[in-house]
Amino acid sequence: MSRTTGTVRIVGAGLLGASVGHALATQGVDVVLDDASRATLTLAVDYGAGRRARPGDAPGLVVVAVPPDLTAEVVAAELAKHPGALVTDVASVKSAILDELRDAGADVSRYLGGHPMAGRERGGAISARADLFLGRPWVITPHAATTDAQRRAIEDLALDLGAIPVVMSADEHDASVALVSHVPQVVSSLLARRLAEAPENSVSLAGQGLRDTTRIASSDPELWVQILGANAGPVVEVLREYRNDLEHVIAALEAPDAPGARRAIAEELAGGNVGVSRIPGKHGTSRRFSQLVVLVRDQPGELARLLTEIGEAGVNMEDLRLEHSPGAQVGLAEISVLPEAEARLLAHLEAGGWTIAGAFA
Amino acid sequence: MSRTTGTVRIVGAGLLGASVGHALATQGVDVVLDDASRATLTLAVDYGAGRRARPGDAPGLVVVAVPPDLTAEVVAAELAKHPGALVTDVASVKSAILDELRDAGADVSRYLGGHPMAGRERGGAISARADLFLGRPWVITPHAATTDAQRRAIEDLALDLGAIPVVMSADEHDASVALVSHVPQVVSSLLARRLAEAPENSVSLAGQGLRDTTRIASSDPELWVQILGANAGPVVEVLREYRNDLEHVIAALEAPDAPGARRAIAEELAGGNVGVSRIPGKHGTSRRFSQLVVLVRDQPGELARLLTEIGEAGVNMEDLRLEHSPGAQVGLAEISVLPEAEARLLAHLEAGGWTIAGAFA
Repeated sequence: MSRTTGTVRIVGAGLLGASVGHALATQGVDVVLDDASRATLTLAVDYGAGRRARPGDAPGLVVVAVPPDLTAEVVAAELAKHPGALVTDVASVKSAILDELRDAGADVSRYLGGHPMAGRERGGAISARADLFLGRPWVITPHAATTDAQRRAIEDLALDLGAIPVVMSADEHDASVALVSHVPQVVSSLLARRLAEAPENSVSLAGQGLRDTTRIASSDPELWVQILGANAGPVVEVLREYRNDLEHVIAALEAPDAPGARRAIAEELAGGNVGVSRIPGKHGTSRRFSQLVVLVRDQPGELARLLTEIGEAGVNMEDLRLEHSPGAQVGLAEISVLPEAEARLLAHLEAGGWTIAGAFA
Repeated sequence: MSRTTGTVRIVGAGLLGASVGHALATQGVDVVLDDASRATLTLAVDYGAGRRARPGDAPGLVVVAVPPDLTAEVVAAELAKHPGALVTDVASVKSAILDELRDAGADVSRYLGGHPMAGRERGGAISARADLFLGRPWVITPHAATTDAQRRAIEDLALDLGAIPVVMSADEHDASVALVSHVPQVVSSLLARRLAEAPENSVSLAGQGLRDTTRIASSDPELWVQILGANAGPVVEVLREYRNDLEHVIAALEAPDAPGARRAIAEELAGGNVGVSRIPGKHGTSRRFSQLVVLVRDQPGELARLLTEIGEAGVNMEDLRLEHSPGAQVGLAEISVLPEAEARLLAHLEAGGWTIAGAFA
């Protein structure tokens, strides 16, 4: 049984909107879908994400799931069209939308912003799944006019979708996502950009470090221009601090043998060690795991065989990465386990004939 | 049978040196190990990476595998001690070492530098494995005095270790690794550094994008200060271009509604798209794969069961990533397959009762 009751209207039937609709509809909630594109709407309805609007629909909750640039305008229209409804959204910026609504004279007492941190921002109803929000933070940003009942309604929505409600102010949200999402996007894109005109020979030496660091650089520029533009203030603030650190490194490397130069670089790198250790890992902990690196031949079923043996050893993998080298017909599976399980697993796998390419604490 | 013949002397019995020794020794090569640390040497000998030096040893090849800061000094000493030997090294910078040797008056006609791109620079003989170099590029950097026979000897060494020899000049090498390895390290460390003093609430919103982008920020500062210091020129060159792009983004975000601002940001992001598309994937190709995201309960054996079914479907995984959300008792397995196999695998997994959280081209 869902916590959310009554009719929920979802405006925007792309990845996020259709995923919300699908998850609620499978729990028996009456979901009304709307989308500016007839084709997108049809796809989402066929997919089971909700029904088309009918005259007389009286939604208690409206979820606006349109691109960030359009969010405030659509929220304002929905507030006007449905005077009895609480209106929320899923845009990845929050203060700018609230400001825009206030400037437009909208009734913000019925608007409460939200932001599901739902991983990839890749698109279309066809990718929508009920599980998109499972275990992800769903930020809710109350303002001065927000009531407890309104906050609980959006918390219920998040809980119905399997997400974890996190309440903070719009400003705190924007500063946080600037730091953990928007600036990483800029940093990664600018790094990848350096490869655009690099000699083939240079790029051919790329390893896993570069691949990881630039993975998100393949994101959609159009969407990200909207996000960065709408959160420009907080993003610039972090980017300026980043630039200051970068200037220190450049200055130190321009005279690497000058007194203090190496210490300056070491301090920047050590600061990175501290920062990365604060990122929560699995289950919200920042606990460190031991890694075993195992050689896996590049054949169907080989990795399954490995993981079956790990299961037989009674060891739970905390994380798994498969790494391929260009030109190689083998992969390296990096398996993270609790430190106390490492020796047991190592012995078990070696007994099973696996080649252990490394073991790291 | 190894291509490398005669006695090989390895100076420095840490991860790289012991791995080279172990791989050669298992192929029957006479490997002599040396290390400034008696404990490290004992560990590596016990591990099977070679034998201790004896009076009268006459190595034809010396491999210097000491930290970058010490490499030139040790190479020079080995050139003097073994006048019949070709001396190579494994340091991740090349021009600075050659310059230092010339300045010191060493006989560089018997020195030919190398750099195995062997992934993690994590340490100690205990992690050393014969497979460390398998399928990885091994850069060889001939200079004016290098003969074909010398180049072939180091190519043979690389091939004996399963690596792929790549020949380029020391300058080209240094510019290449600045781009694909050293600058990504700086960029990632500086990004992670922004998290060091961030509020707990902000860091708790971190997702997979941030985790990927900052993964290498946990690298050893001491080692990286040496690497960056020794390759300062090429690194600064790339960092300056990076800084210019960063300045453009900051300027555009300081006035995001000014004419041209959004286009400027979009161009930077689109440049990142181009750059990341050039990074070679598995088997040296930059072919794009389709991804299926499958929900996996967090229990021993669940992932094995999934991969067994993938094997049964006759589909070869090109890549696999397991992603955990903080607080969630489920993981998301992102499986990359050839585009033509996607629909078949999707149908097979859905028939097997798996929850597909997404499908992306």
